[in-house]
Amino acid sequence: MATINDNYLKLKAGYLFPEIARRVNSFIEANSDAKIIKLGIGDVTEPLPEACRTAMIKAVEEMGDRNTFKGYGPEQGYAWLREKIAQEDFQARGCDIDASEIFISDGSKCDTGNILDIFGKDNIIAVTDPVYPVYVDTNVMAGHTGSVNERGEFDGLVYLPITAENNFTAEIPSQKVDLIYLCFPNNPTGATATKDYLKTWVDYAKANGAIIFFDAAYEAFITDSSLPHSIYEIDGARDCAIEFRSFSKNAGFTGTRCALTVVPKTLTAKASDGSDVEIWKLWNRRQSTKFNGVSYGVQRGAEAVYSTEGKAQVRALIDFYMENATIICEQLKAAGLSVYGGVNAPYVWVKTPHGLSSWDFFDKLLQTCNVVGTPGSGFGAAGEGYFRISAFNSRENVNEAMKRITEKFKV
Amino acid sequence: MATINDNYLKLKAGYLFPEIARRVNSFIEANSDAKIIKLGIGDVTEPLPEACRTAMIKAVEEMGDRNTFKGYGPEQGYAWLREKIAQEDFQARGCDIDASEIFISDGSKCDTGNILDIFGKDNIIAVTDPVYPVYVDTNVMAGHTGSVNERGEFDGLVYLPITAENNFTAEIPSQKVDLIYLCFPNNPTGATATKDYLKTWVDYAKANGAIIFFDAAYEAFITDSSLPHSIYEIDGARDCAIEFRSFSKNAGFTGTRCALTVVPKTLTAKASDGSDVEIWKLWNRRQSTKFNGVSYGVQRGAEAVYSTEGKAQVRALIDFYMENATIICEQLKAAGLSVYGGVNAPYVWVKTPHGLSSWDFFDKLLQTCNVVGTPGSGFGAAGEGYFRISAFNSRENVNEAMKRITEKFKV
Repeated sequence: MATINDNYLKLKAGYLFPEIARRVNSFIEANSDAKIIKLGIGDVTEPLPEACRTAMIKAVEEMGDRNTFKGYGPEQGYAWLREKIAQEDFQARGCDIDASEIFISDGSKCDTGNILDIFGKDNIIAVTDPVYPVYVDTNVMAGHTGSVNERGEFDGLVYLPITAENNFTAEIPSQKVDLIYLCFPNNPTGATATKDYLKTWVDYAKANGAIIFFDAAYEAFITDSSLPHSIYEIDGARDCAIEFRSFSKNAGFTGTRCALTVVPKTLTAKASDGSDVEIWKLWNRRQSTKFNGVSYGVQRGAEAVYSTEGKAQVRALIDFYMENATIICEQLKAAGLSVYGGVNAPYVWVKTPHGLSSWDFFDKLLQTCNVVGTPGSGFGAAGEGYFRISAFNSRENVNEAMKRITEKFKV
Repeated sequence: MATINDNYLKLKAGYLFPEIARRVNSFIEANSDAKIIKLGIGDVTEPLPEACRTAMIKAVEEMGDRNTFKGYGPEQGYAWLREKIAQEDFQARGCDIDASEIFISDGSKCDTGNILDIFGKDNIIAVTDPVYPVYVDTNVMAGHTGSVNERGEFDGLVYLPITAENNFTAEIPSQKVDLIYLCFPNNPTGATATKDYLKTWVDYAKANGAIIFFDAAYEAFITDSSLPHSIYEIDGARDCAIEFRSFSKNAGFTGTRCALTVVPKTLTAKASDGSDVEIWKLWNRRQSTKFNGVSYGVQRGAEAVYSTEGKAQVRALIDFYMENATIICEQLKAAGLSVYGGVNAPYVWVKTPHGLSSWDFFDKLLQTCNVVGTPGSGFGAAGEGYFRISAFNSRENVNEAMKRITEKFKV
């Protein structure tokens, strides 16, 4: 008699974004003429950079000639892409990361979930609260938690609250933890981390044999030159951190799909016999067994991000979204709302007005302004009373959404 | 102290194909002028069909206009692709499969590995021997096995031998098993399954509450009209089978990456409290949490496989490779070798001559003929003494490889 993985039954009804989509679709069905503006899911809206498109079309054309046709590529990704990344994203910032330590994948969502495959069941896991829901849900699926309480917290996870009180930067936990998820610039709060702050985590991890999962999906939005883009800018991080990056938000690859994970060869963890095992070897074995690499043309598109034209086009995209973020912050502040983030990050984190719950504010915003955001409580119990607004949309839509919100919610 | 998943330490040194690559690279380094012909890994060699390329280029162009730009797609895949598949691959053959039961992914290797995420740890797993190594390795990684013996067999797995004696079709096991991997047309042996044969498995699965993982990656190579292309051609399979398919081998997508998995909504398995849980819901939850869908352009390329031009171009590709298979079979038989498969399947399964072991034959073939095949023992203990030759190459290379082999190995 085949049995299921019972841990799935512990999960809450739906992953946050499908639940939002359900409510939005249901509203649209009942209000077919409503002009919905989506500032919810962090999905980009502007065209793919021309440099990427040109490279992708050339790649498809190569597929038409048996002399340049590409079959299975290296599971880890093509060396020409990994070398560009190592050089431009890491070595240029003084990070000692080699191309062989980079694994190309089709998404950070996959990687941050799949990375758990290679770790033991007995690790104590720490997440911030609020947090990107995939970190929590994939730990639940893997059986790393107990059941969930009415606040949405799972037994067995260590939650590190991030709120206005601690400037949305988690404090080092008093208990020992083994695997720690950190995301900077932060999703959902838009908070950033200084080098000094990250150093406290690297020091903690090294002192405790812990490993940091560092999600840098939004690093391209950093404009403050004092802020680190990579955890490997911190001395010692090679021995205690895995970094996740994506082309989704910088080059607009959410529908094109390309990301990368950095696993330094110096990173180890313990086997049950007490020996040290290289994490790189395990991840390489996992990826070469369960993954077949990213589409050739997509990798060529990602490579073009590092060309002269590509860099300028990506910079223009980022600047555009960050101008949106500035408009959102200014407009909401002018309307008397408390606003966080939106600087060095494409997310604006808003305190819901009038003491509304996050989902009540979601429904109200949808119904009265036809604007979709993301309820803070969907990211964790400590996100209750907050709301995430994304800067990913056209200028026209951002202006119109702000006009509607400020009119209706003026405090 | 972070710990690893110790199950990884049970794995044999390398996944089969990386090990082959290692030996080939080492040979090339020592013999830089050798003209290697690869008939090893099942990788296609001929250009991507024009219909697919045209669709993919159009898709990239759409990405350049914000009105047609595509961000995140549905995790399950676009409905227009799933509907074509449901209609052309299933309903047209009398299979009661709906588009909502199809999940688009970037590869069958991923899906056949990841599917274990949603099943319990206590299932008894059956695999054929020889078998596609990913089935075994992913079960080892998931902790479903004990350690490995010197024949390469893992404690806790039920191995069903497939040899010339049983016509390479596994017998129904005498013990109860819960999850069964079947692959037809078979990789590596090239064997096929009749409807009557598959019906014995469906009946067994239904009687025992077992689930069949049916890998149909090579169905396009079936030319005998009496043979089933899908397990859903068998009555009752909707209640006991998941089917995996791929665009890799029919349309040459090994470097482009697109596949699909069918999970009927009527399929259930037991939770630990004895209740029946819909597998579709679990897989949908897994995919929407840990996957972000396949690249938009790649899905458009896959859709083009079902256009009039696409169908004709794919047919021509298949015919070409099958003519290769026929040449391989005829030449090796003429040289006195015992040959199986190669009809309705792109793999030829050869008994190694002179009692050579599979790896000895591999090394000999590499060194004396500069031809790369795949050692049968790499697919399992019962594959020892066999060798897989793939029909995926140019006509010129296939002819040249056969000339070299027949000259050197004439028995």
